[in-house]
Amino acid sequence: MIPDPHAHASADAATSADALSPDELKTICDHMADAAQRAARKLMTASGAAKDAWLKASARGLIAQTEAILAANARDLDHAQNAGLSRAAIDRLRLDSNRIAEIAHALEEIAALPDPLGETLASSIRPNGLEVRKVRVPLGVVFMIYESRPNVTADAAALCVKSGNAVILRGGSEAFHSNHALHRVLADALEPAGLPREAVQLVPVTDRAAVGHLLTRSDAIDLAIPRGGAGLIRRVVAEARMPVLKHYDGNCHVYIDQYADPDMAEAIILNAKVQRPGVCNAAETLLIHRAIAATMLPRIAERLLAHGVELRGDPEACALVPAMTPATPEDWDTEYLDLTLAVAVVDSLDAAIEHINRHGSKHTDAIVSRDLESVRRFAARVDTAAVMINASTRFNDGGQLGLGAEIGISTDKLHARGPCGLRELTTTKWIVTGSGHIRA
Amino acid sequence: MIPDPHAHASADAATSADALSPDELKTICDHMADAAQRAARKLMTASGAAKDAWLKASARGLIAQTEAILAANARDLDHAQNAGLSRAAIDRLRLDSNRIAEIAHALEEIAALPDPLGETLASSIRPNGLEVRKVRVPLGVVFMIYESRPNVTADAAALCVKSGNAVILRGGSEAFHSNHALHRVLADALEPAGLPREAVQLVPVTDRAAVGHLLTRSDAIDLAIPRGGAGLIRRVVAEARMPVLKHYDGNCHVYIDQYADPDMAEAIILNAKVQRPGVCNAAETLLIHRAIAATMLPRIAERLLAHGVELRGDPEACALVPAMTPATPEDWDTEYLDLTLAVAVVDSLDAAIEHINRHGSKHTDAIVSRDLESVRRFAARVDTAAVMINASTRFNDGGQLGLGAEIGISTDKLHARGPCGLRELTTTKWIVTGSGHIRA
Repeated sequence: MIPDPHAHASADAATSADALSPDELKTICDHMADAAQRAARKLMTASGAAKDAWLKASARGLIAQTEAILAANARDLDHAQNAGLSRAAIDRLRLDSNRIAEIAHALEEIAALPDPLGETLASSIRPNGLEVRKVRVPLGVVFMIYESRPNVTADAAALCVKSGNAVILRGGSEAFHSNHALHRVLADALEPAGLPREAVQLVPVTDRAAVGHLLTRSDAIDLAIPRGGAGLIRRVVAEARMPVLKHYDGNCHVYIDQYADPDMAEAIILNAKVQRPGVCNAAETLLIHRAIAATMLPRIAERLLAHGVELRGDPEACALVPAMTPATPEDWDTEYLDLTLAVAVVDSLDAAIEHINRHGSKHTDAIVSRDLESVRRFAARVDTAAVMINASTRFNDGGQLGLGAEIGISTDKLHARGPCGLRELTTTKWIVTGSGHIRA
Repeated sequence: MIPDPHAHASADAATSADALSPDELKTICDHMADAAQRAARKLMTASGAAKDAWLKASARGLIAQTEAILAANARDLDHAQNAGLSRAAIDRLRLDSNRIAEIAHALEEIAALPDPLGETLASSIRPNGLEVRKVRVPLGVVFMIYESRPNVTADAAALCVKSGNAVILRGGSEAFHSNHALHRVLADALEPAGLPREAVQLVPVTDRAAVGHLLTRSDAIDLAIPRGGAGLIRRVVAEARMPVLKHYDGNCHVYIDQYADPDMAEAIILNAKVQRPGVCNAAETLLIHRAIAATMLPRIAERLLAHGVELRGDPEACALVPAMTPATPEDWDTEYLDLTLAVAVVDSLDAAIEHINRHGSKHTDAIVSRDLESVRRFAARVDTAAVMINASTRFNDGGQLGLGAEIGISTDKLHARGPCGLRELTTTKWIVTGSGHIRA
């Protein structure tokens, strides 16, 4: 007899579910994977209207259930405080009625995005008359493994289902009760909208073995998306037998060329570093051309220091700005996610490109320059997901680039590179129509 | 001191190279991965003219070096005969001057294909005036692991370099000398064409540990492509830390609907099964609607039997065609790659869809029907890389679909699905241009 995973899906199930034997855990995981695959087959042909109706009903449900969600969140916050979690971690975990309203609003925004499915991406009539079309279709089943922020539960479910996919969610154990409360609202709205309830499932146990087992089910799960620290991503990559959409470090650079406009350069590095230092598209290293370093760097450093930024420079930068501390070799490879910036003076545009290709994480790298040839060379030769020309690194974001909401920013080159929105949660299918065509 | 891998790259190095210590092997592999990454950086901006000049020079070189290549091939054939390889394996391995001319011609055809790079895939101007473009760029470094046929050495190198990528080739040990002889011609033509010699490297040892080590170098290698049996693919998937383009089984179906044209149905299943039974897009299972089974199946079976096809039927099919043997449950999941066909009578279109989604390998599945609603339902609901409507499954092929040459047929849904040509060996880069834009 197969246990019903929903029997464990209540906010009170954490402890009892974790007392499951390995075999029981495996059975529950297999049941979830199979149910997700069946749901995905139904979602393949679900109408856009049904999916948008579900998103809007879920948004209303979240507002209506604010009290229950906050009660669940309070339990997580209690555990977190007892477990001695950092203030930052507790802040990421905390919900209030404003945050719940924001989560609901995000669902309405996703409902308003165009349906990514059905688009014809290529078509031709072959010399033999065969009609060839390549159309956009859902991926199938997505397995989302994430940490901390409970809003990911709603965002990921919304993006996956809107793009025609079933999703299995596995949030962090510290947000266990919050995630269950949010999931329940979304899951309860599926069947009334004409969608299968198993389209959105939440792993009902915190045992890590569940993740490991699901990652072997490449027959049923088409894509794994880990969202969290490098340790989580590495573990998923090592264990997964299906493709993984990875979002590693954002070690982003701003290069100030000898032909940069000084005011523009100052505004861009300031924005890239201090506007929101804790995010992946914030700048971590400033490179500046030797020809303008002596005139421009002291002034830029002054502004950065005034904003509380700690500067770590190479010897030449330190000589120009006495308030800098000497950088160690590790600094060039570090994603600080904080008010710290590594600074190096470079000999040339090519030296800047070389530095970025050696130390960068292929996420976002900016050049500030008025010279067309410098800009073209930088854009062609820097191996990165997004080149910013005379713009802050902070613009590498699904919303800013016009993709709508994003499920993550891929630092891989395969399938999707950079922000991943609805289209990046789809695949293609060839549809070939003949009139009895056979091969000679 | 780093050993030069090219010192081991001669056709005589197999034995001595295999006597390397694990540390020496690792050093050689690391050196190859690093050299490939440097070459890839140069290839990013190599001109299409240089790459096409290399392809044409390589084609001329293969013809000019026919004698040396055949001598190397003779050594492999000797080993193969002594090792007791099957006649089919020896045939796959065997080169003659015609086959070498075909390999050279394939390089010229790839030279004639349009350059896949530089294409703008999406572009917009954001409300704030930021210009956003998504352009096609090379992947970087491809690691190609393959078995048997020496022509893959030339095909894979040509497709990778034409699409702007460096490639590390690792052919089967049975083709060791043939692959080296082919590789030498291609590698020798790189520098005269203005391309880096390390753009095309061949792993100079047969030790499997070399593959294992290279599969960990996700920092330098962007994509692994195993091409061979399921065992090879599974090993690469398990060990690779970079994305893998997979080409698993082709368990392809032909479904004959109740509204099929009888002559068309007969021609299509005959072509799909017998025209070339040993390839992945040949049909392995015939499904036929009950309403027309009694009139159509005996006639179709007679044609198939006349072509030497062994038929394995479900009870209803066996009752209609006494010459059929009863199918076992395994038959529905088997890729025969031979003159064998499983046959089942189904109750309905939906039963056919259900059978294919349960047993198929998501490769190529065909429907024969004149009914528009049946065709639309089948195309929307069968979860497969290519749906063939009134056409043979044999058309799922890069050349037939208009992609030019292919490096494989992906049975994955991520990145590329179906035939992979030059475009599927590329990724994208966002290029965002502002005039001092910063985020508020």
